[in-house]
Amino acid sequence: MASIQSEANRNHYAAIAANAGKLTSPQAIIDYNDTHWTALTGEPGGVDYVEVDAGGVPAMWIVPKGADEERVLFYAHGGGFVGGSIYTHRKLVGHLAKAAGCRALLYNYPLAHQAKHPAQLNAAMTAWTWLTDRGFDTSHIALAGDSCGAMLTYGVLQRLRAEGRPLPVATLIISGWFDMALTGASYETNRDKDPAFAKAAVDWLVTNFIGDGDRLAPEVSALYADLRGFPPVFLQAGADETLVDESRMFAERARLAGVETRLDVFDGMLHSFQMMAGKAPEADDAIGRFAAWVRPRLGLPAVSDKVAGDRAA
Amino acid sequence: MASIQSEANRNHYAAIAANAGKLTSPQAIIDYNDTHWTALTGEPGGVDYVEVDAGGVPAMWIVPKGADEERVLFYAHGGGFVGGSIYTHRKLVGHLAKAAGCRALLYNYPLAHQAKHPAQLNAAMTAWTWLTDRGFDTSHIALAGDSCGAMLTYGVLQRLRAEGRPLPVATLIISGWFDMALTGASYETNRDKDPAFAKAAVDWLVTNFIGDGDRLAPEVSALYADLRGFPPVFLQAGADETLVDESRMFAERARLAGVETRLDVFDGMLHSFQMMAGKAPEADDAIGRFAAWVRPRLGLPAVSDKVAGDRAA
Repeated sequence: MASIQSEANRNHYAAIAANAGKLTSPQAIIDYNDTHWTALTGEPGGVDYVEVDAGGVPAMWIVPKGADEERVLFYAHGGGFVGGSIYTHRKLVGHLAKAAGCRALLYNYPLAHQAKHPAQLNAAMTAWTWLTDRGFDTSHIALAGDSCGAMLTYGVLQRLRAEGRPLPVATLIISGWFDMALTGASYETNRDKDPAFAKAAVDWLVTNFIGDGDRLAPEVSALYADLRGFPPVFLQAGADETLVDESRMFAERARLAGVETRLDVFDGMLHSFQMMAGKAPEADDAIGRFAAWVRPRLGLPAVSDKVAGDRAA
Repeated sequence: MASIQSEANRNHYAAIAANAGKLTSPQAIIDYNDTHWTALTGEPGGVDYVEVDAGGVPAMWIVPKGADEERVLFYAHGGGFVGGSIYTHRKLVGHLAKAAGCRALLYNYPLAHQAKHPAQLNAAMTAWTWLTDRGFDTSHIALAGDSCGAMLTYGVLQRLRAEGRPLPVATLIISGWFDMALTGASYETNRDKDPAFAKAAVDWLVTNFIGDGDRLAPEVSALYADLRGFPPVFLQAGADETLVDESRMFAERARLAGVETRLDVFDGMLHSFQMMAGKAPEADDAIGRFAAWVRPRLGLPAVSDKVAGDRAA
């Protein structure tokens, strides 16, 4: 059963739906998320935040005290290309980095009202190149992202492969948005459980992002990408979110492509419930699982899910 | 007339009053402030946050990009000794430091349920000593604080003077709490304007902090302290807050003691409205005034209130 604390995430999405009529400008949506989405996450504590210009892309080093300095989580925040930033996701990524015992680089990209696709992916590539140009070894880097951050994460992987560049060693995805064609059955089956991400609302986000562009293009819909040779991936999703089938379908595609794949679906949880890190036990548990899974892949000593989760909380 | 944006501060206090029945444990109050009070403030951007152990006191360096590295605002957060932390005040102090063009050191201290007076002042002194032991020149340090942070600020000044140690060069106070005897007439005259700080509520905060201790002791009630020889002070308060007369009475005492004193009272504003920095114009204006006033005292080139306020926003 969902914890009392986790209701905050559901309430947040219900409030978005209830306030949809007021969120009529890009800035109103940004402000709403800055105020309310950010507030879901507890302060991890013992984490430093240092902004950096990553080759022209605004980014933030997230550095837990005592963390390994050579290992990096390269993080693409979510927000449907209408919200989210290095500030909304600072604390979430802080919890994740603290649990994993490494640093993270969280980067901004233009939102859809500022620039259309592929400006977002270009920004991600610029930040990636900046990171690897600074001497960080790709065998010590994992990609991570939530929601539309999954699109950027798999866009980066596709471009790196196309350019013959070294790939990172692992991928962590929270409530990934993999399919701009919105073919997942859970848009219907979870319609009454998910207050915010009705199919029509997500369809609006697609059009807002790519206009009448190709919804099946692999760079925007990783579900249709060639995933062969990509690093191991750990996907997490909420059982009650309309997007959950995108994670299930993607996991199936990844396995068929020979990618080591793990998918954990969390009962009673909604989209990106990990934003409640430091407040809700489900979020800390989820982040602990990510951390325990990714540490040995980054070359760090293994720890249990429990130990990692305690570090996340 | 108060800006539409500034209503957020009033709504915050009204919500506290409406939720008072639920805020029955110290942790509930802390959590409420962490979530809701923090959310009032916009992200200043371009500011780094680095936690530090200041001689055993948890503290945070707040470092605006390009800021002078030798000048420091030593900041005591508010919260009535029942809430507030380096996390709730991170962004407010970020705006202030950015506007002033220097760094800030924001420190934690035990809340009243963790330790009674003078543990809070002892923590402030420890952090101060840590700062000055690290080579920062007191002629390049200003004290700053809001609400009960005023008590700690003037407690530090009294202890430094008693110990014959050098004083900082200036003091900035937001909605200072100077009088544990609660003698200000504005507890009555603003009773209907201030949703949160009714005299009975503040009286509870006093008892929670010092029990049946002496409410006139100068270390807890700076209104009754000997202020001679103290550095110039710039006080700001909201015209509608029940505490505004504490600032007026303190300003009068400071002038009589020969202290260079400025008091700006902001029409239509409530307690610590500067927490709306980056969102409400009144807050950015107020922070701009602080910054323009303190810069030459710290040995930095003068700028206008407007320029400083634009930097704060």
